[in-house]
Amino acid sequence: MEKLDILIKNGTILTMDPENRILEMGIIGIHGDTISFVGSEENKGLESKQIIDAKGGLVLPGLINGHTHAAMSLFRGLADDLPLMEWLNNYIFPAEKRLDSDFVFAGTLLACAEMILSGTTTFCDMYLFEEEVAKAAKQACMRSLVGEVLYDFESPNYGPAENGLRYTEDLIQTWEGDPLVSIAVEPHTLFTCSPELLSASHELAIKYNVPLIIHVAETMNEVNDIKNKYGRRPIEHLHSLGILGPHLIADHCVHLQEDEIQLMADNQVKVIHNPESNMKLASGIAPIPEMLAKQMTVGLGTDGCASNNNLDLIAEMDTAAKLHKLASMDTTVMDAPTVLRMATIEGARALGLGDMVGSLETGKKADIIIVDTNKPHLTPLYNPISHLVYAARGSDVSHSIINGRLVMEERRLLTLDLYDIMGEVRAKSGRVKKWVKP
Amino acid sequence: MEKLDILIKNGTILTMDPENRILEMGIIGIHGDTISFVGSEENKGLESKQIIDAKGGLVLPGLINGHTHAAMSLFRGLADDLPLMEWLNNYIFPAEKRLDSDFVFAGTLLACAEMILSGTTTFCDMYLFEEEVAKAAKQACMRSLVGEVLYDFESPNYGPAENGLRYTEDLIQTWEGDPLVSIAVEPHTLFTCSPELLSASHELAIKYNVPLIIHVAETMNEVNDIKNKYGRRPIEHLHSLGILGPHLIADHCVHLQEDEIQLMADNQVKVIHNPESNMKLASGIAPIPEMLAKQMTVGLGTDGCASNNNLDLIAEMDTAAKLHKLASMDTTVMDAPTVLRMATIEGARALGLGDMVGSLETGKKADIIIVDTNKPHLTPLYNPISHLVYAARGSDVSHSIINGRLVMEERRLLTLDLYDIMGEVRAKSGRVKKWVKP
Repeated sequence: MEKLDILIKNGTILTMDPENRILEMGIIGIHGDTISFVGSEENKGLESKQIIDAKGGLVLPGLINGHTHAAMSLFRGLADDLPLMEWLNNYIFPAEKRLDSDFVFAGTLLACAEMILSGTTTFCDMYLFEEEVAKAAKQACMRSLVGEVLYDFESPNYGPAENGLRYTEDLIQTWEGDPLVSIAVEPHTLFTCSPELLSASHELAIKYNVPLIIHVAETMNEVNDIKNKYGRRPIEHLHSLGILGPHLIADHCVHLQEDEIQLMADNQVKVIHNPESNMKLASGIAPIPEMLAKQMTVGLGTDGCASNNNLDLIAEMDTAAKLHKLASMDTTVMDAPTVLRMATIEGARALGLGDMVGSLETGKKADIIIVDTNKPHLTPLYNPISHLVYAARGSDVSHSIINGRLVMEERRLLTLDLYDIMGEVRAKSGRVKKWVKP
Repeated sequence: MEKLDILIKNGTILTMDPENRILEMGIIGIHGDTISFVGSEENKGLESKQIIDAKGGLVLPGLINGHTHAAMSLFRGLADDLPLMEWLNNYIFPAEKRLDSDFVFAGTLLACAEMILSGTTTFCDMYLFEEEVAKAAKQACMRSLVGEVLYDFESPNYGPAENGLRYTEDLIQTWEGDPLVSIAVEPHTLFTCSPELLSASHELAIKYNVPLIIHVAETMNEVNDIKNKYGRRPIEHLHSLGILGPHLIADHCVHLQEDEIQLMADNQVKVIHNPESNMKLASGIAPIPEMLAKQMTVGLGTDGCASNNNLDLIAEMDTAAKLHKLASMDTTVMDAPTVLRMATIEGARALGLGDMVGSLETGKKADIIIVDTNKPHLTPLYNPISHLVYAARGSDVSHSIINGRLVMEERRLLTLDLYDIMGEVRAKSGRVKKWVKP
């Protein structure tokens, strides 16, 4: 066997493979960008250029943030606790109108730093100036699925609406074959995109075999708008346009009826659940247990920092597990293993990356994190999955490897200069304050 | 002016005083156990034995965990996601039956470490062997309000039920005048305590002028039980016993009717809200906004580690703020300032410690924490209160001072030996596993 590039030893490995195997005192071998070995300590013959000692911690697949708007890290805490339209009209929209590529690049780097530091290795983004998002994610050495937000009005990035699809097609062609960056087609919502734009987006996604990503049924207002405008509920509207399919990733999906869930399940639509944002914006509770009962693929997302206000997927797991117990008044609903799978392998599958990442299996890309359990809030350790979901925090992640590259070691970022990034966004935040306070 | 013992400088001070003053680049002077100065950087003349540089971070009152069972840190993750009675009967009760004073001491030290590391300086405890809890908290140099759990059956600590009140009275007399430890009388619930035990507990609390603390209306089952048994709802039952009053701290209060809330408000009953535990155990959502609308005093608690599973009050703030927006479908409910007050000054008032701690004001005891904001998830900083509630984590707390003593410096605990504590509880956890798995 060829010499390994990285060998991780002395950890409890949560493989998240089809058998959900947990290997105590396991080892993982990495060769180039790929996992070449997952097994037990007995295989001591393996040689490696670098050895990482997990020190008894947990070794698991890097977490998958299935839905965010990374650069909104620039607007975190700018305004909270306001009526939705006041928040949007007086703060978020005025700020976004003035965004430029520099802001999005800086905000995305900041978000990547936060995400790596809290265990996320892949994120799915929808925002403006996504070429910059791809570049920033690439610089951070994060895996990303990104797409320019498309809607019926003028964009501060690509200008008139008709340019949006061309910009997206350019993105697809530019990043084709990139080992870390993938592109999606991302119309904003059913109420900001005409049926024509939705259909054209769908066709572009099909043409290039990339995901189609839309915010769907996030609020009751949206459902009522769509019903008033088209005489159909959101999923029925998408169905009538012929858009439902395994390439569609529907974010939020809070307000669905039983028959809409069935339609989505029949068409293998993927869903990303964003419980904290749905709570903070008083949107509602997505019927996730009902989706899981129909074997749907559901990932977990944080949504943007302006409506959460963090990108910590470990905290999001905790909320997801607890929220649905409350909603169903049943303590057994959304157990810890289910939620951890949503944040890893199911999230990867939802983004169309399930063959590549989301579990620790030979041949998959090496996206791996280590969680340090030598802390009072993780001691004693009876059940690693319970600790990850209910007790751990993003700050317990000690190491991160993405695509075979060590990007965080003992909480030190190796691909990003935190001092520079924070200095840059602090400078930019002064301008943001002026934009929203006349 | 006499020389200060500690001077904190270069921070943004969130005083939580009646005007909610926020002092940018403020300083705080501490003399002995007391805050002797809160003001602006201009007062540079102050001399101090020790100077703590907050480095631009947030300086605020130590957080008040209004309800927990500290030693249950030993059972964290032992079992989750089970039906309530299966969890209690097969795991928690069998383990608790075998508890002894060593276990409770070790588990409480572990909990104190976690609480200090996440910004809590005062906690209110209800459990077994509370003499050990008081000793452990005192060793950690945490402020505590503790009380032995009382019920109608035999206790592994004090034996037959009739000994419980005597044990509690001993606790009160032993710890009288202690600068850190206060004692409460703590009957368990309305369904595990006879009317006679509740009344006797109330009389003991009145005799010594200490708080009376009870779990109240945590589950719908409890409400139904009490109605079936006494023909009254829980608060009406307490009222009929003459127990409602400003000395009563009611934990949970999930299932209340409007008239019960009014009765509690009229009698100045205090409430501790435990949203994460109420979610995880599928208990329900306490009507906190309705209580606040009646000017009731409501604090925040984590409950025990077996039903949360952490003691991080910063995470609890985030959940509290989001949960009630969802419950009321109103984004303006439980805004960040309200929630931060629940975790500080209102929590202190709920525990009867409002004149002593909970805000940074001259003459109050020096219980102070510093939050390091020089991190990507807290940068940029538009609004410190928003960041504390929605973006910060317990691990962002860098310093903690309790009763004038520095107990954590740059995240290093100064009163506890983490290595010893974690080793001890790991050894004990092996025995716990045997208790619950025959």
